[in-house]
Amino acid sequence: MRKRFPAEVYVEGIRRGDRLVLSRAITLVESRLPADAALAQEVLSALLPCTGKSLRVGVTGVPGVGKSTFLEVLGHHLTERGHRLAILTIDPSSRRSGGSILGDKTRMETLANNPHAYIRPSPTGDSLGGVSRKTREVMLLCEAAGFDLIVVETVGVGQSETAVRELVDCFLLLLLAGAGDELQGVKRGIMEMADVLTVTKADGPNQDAAQLARLELQHALHLFPLPASGWTPTVTVCSALEERGITDVWAQVEAFAQHTQQNGWFARNRREQNRYWLHETLRQTLLDRFYQHPHIRALLPDLENAVAEGHTAVPEAAKKLLEGYGNT
Amino acid sequence: MRKRFPAEVYVEGIRRGDRLVLSRAITLVESRLPADAALAQEVLSALLPCTGKSLRVGVTGVPGVGKSTFLEVLGHHLTERGHRLAILTIDPSSRRSGGSILGDKTRMETLANNPHAYIRPSPTGDSLGGVSRKTREVMLLCEAAGFDLIVVETVGVGQSETAVRELVDCFLLLLLAGAGDELQGVKRGIMEMADVLTVTKADGPNQDAAQLARLELQHALHLFPLPASGWTPTVTVCSALEERGITDVWAQVEAFAQHTQQNGWFARNRREQNRYWLHETLRQTLLDRFYQHPHIRALLPDLENAVAEGHTAVPEAAKKLLEGYGNT
Repeated sequence: MRKRFPAEVYVEGIRRGDRLVLSRAITLVESRLPADAALAQEVLSALLPCTGKSLRVGVTGVPGVGKSTFLEVLGHHLTERGHRLAILTIDPSSRRSGGSILGDKTRMETLANNPHAYIRPSPTGDSLGGVSRKTREVMLLCEAAGFDLIVVETVGVGQSETAVRELVDCFLLLLLAGAGDELQGVKRGIMEMADVLTVTKADGPNQDAAQLARLELQHALHLFPLPASGWTPTVTVCSALEERGITDVWAQVEAFAQHTQQNGWFARNRREQNRYWLHETLRQTLLDRFYQHPHIRALLPDLENAVAEGHTAVPEAAKKLLEGYGNT
Repeated sequence: MRKRFPAEVYVEGIRRGDRLVLSRAITLVESRLPADAALAQEVLSALLPCTGKSLRVGVTGVPGVGKSTFLEVLGHHLTERGHRLAILTIDPSSRRSGGSILGDKTRMETLANNPHAYIRPSPTGDSLGGVSRKTREVMLLCEAAGFDLIVVETVGVGQSETAVRELVDCFLLLLLAGAGDELQGVKRGIMEMADVLTVTKADGPNQDAAQLARLELQHALHLFPLPASGWTPTVTVCSALEERGITDVWAQVEAFAQHTQQNGWFARNRREQNRYWLHETLRQTLLDRFYQHPHIRALLPDLENAVAEGHTAVPEAAKKLLEGYGNT
């Protein structure tokens, strides 16, 4: 086990923006050791007043849409304008396959060397799509360290987007032109969640196709019911390669933030998200306690098999497991 | 509270196919009273050896697709062939709005009078989409009462389908021709879950449109990856009004059942479903116990507000709630 600092060392280090301490604190938060959990909680509670002041943006899109190139260009643009940007990358593929869709090592190389940007692969956790309460706590640490823009980047494969929606203020979807109606159709569920949409790689011979895709998407969006935010997205086109349209995308993000701050949705959404994460934490903790309990670990395998084979009814098996496990 | 029978009265009544006893047993299973839960569990365990012998089919489609008319025609066709059919209707809209999309009272009137069919609105429960473990237990009671075909009918609005998938062997999706690419697109997620698809209302001036829709859907299906069942659906057209194509739909359901029984997926899927419902029951019970505990009910409102307003960190609030609640 790595050496741990007292809580105040993490708290003070993060408050003065020390990246080394921030990285150590993230490792602490990601740890599964019970002793670390208590320390992490102390650090998070002490830093809570310094959190919540960033704009939190989810960025997603299918593999190949050019998320890293887009974020590199956007990242330099934002840091040049005085922002401090933290990018948390979530790659659900890395846990399952051992490989990684994102291939983190070779990505965003120039941005990684930018002193005003901080890139960190987020822990995949146990939750579906790899988004866990740990991702949220890492985000809070970054906010306390003075990053005023947090980007949570996911592979747009449909699993993690719903969970990321509970983390961010604004959801940015990158789309490819000419990927076919079928593919766009599969992504409808994600389209409905998006606050800002842009068609990427609108460069060279792709430009006409990108404009056409933009029109089609804009048309399709008008068929969706008005979301709770009261905001109807405008679809743009951009090229990270030719560095065109990137600022337009960000202008949409800022317009969305302003719109929802004015109509009250922004603050309301954050309050709802806080509630969501409390209940999610309670749920996860209760289930972890149960499944890690020696009594349950001893009984479960046989009972699960008996249920699977149809020899024992579900309520009967559940009763046997629960009656030896207090709090009735 | 309604009078309860001893467990053996329910068990014997259901075994001899007594509908009155079946209805009473369903009411018992649906009850939220702890005393009823113990009795229901006893009844279910005793009946377990008589369950599992039916074919379980989920039927879904958007409002207006003609599910009831389809099921009326199909129901009479199946009972004429010697089958005994139970239809459990799940209508998530009835709980929220007080109204009901399905409008149960006026639906399937002639089938309701068919002595070999049994129609019952399923309890909506607390779960998303109205599908709860209670729905599953009602299905088991119907099987024990001798129904060899169970249809679980849902409004295809996207919420309940995922949960119904965990209940049934075969998922039948009814689709409308000419509902527009946009609508079909929204339903892609459900299309991927479907084992059998049919375009309804292929009658009168609709026939050409229905055939065209069938071809488009069949084409779209080939773009999806092969599902775990190893079965690629064939899309058919049908008209409940003119009573055409209904038997073709059922032939597809039977072909699917035969195919998956032969390749082992059918039995494997049932085992996985049994496991799923055990863990789902455990999860629901643990959370119910927690949220109904006097200690939690006393502390939660203030802590939830403190978290929502950003005054208390999520892990700190969770710790306060959990430390007074045993099993650490």
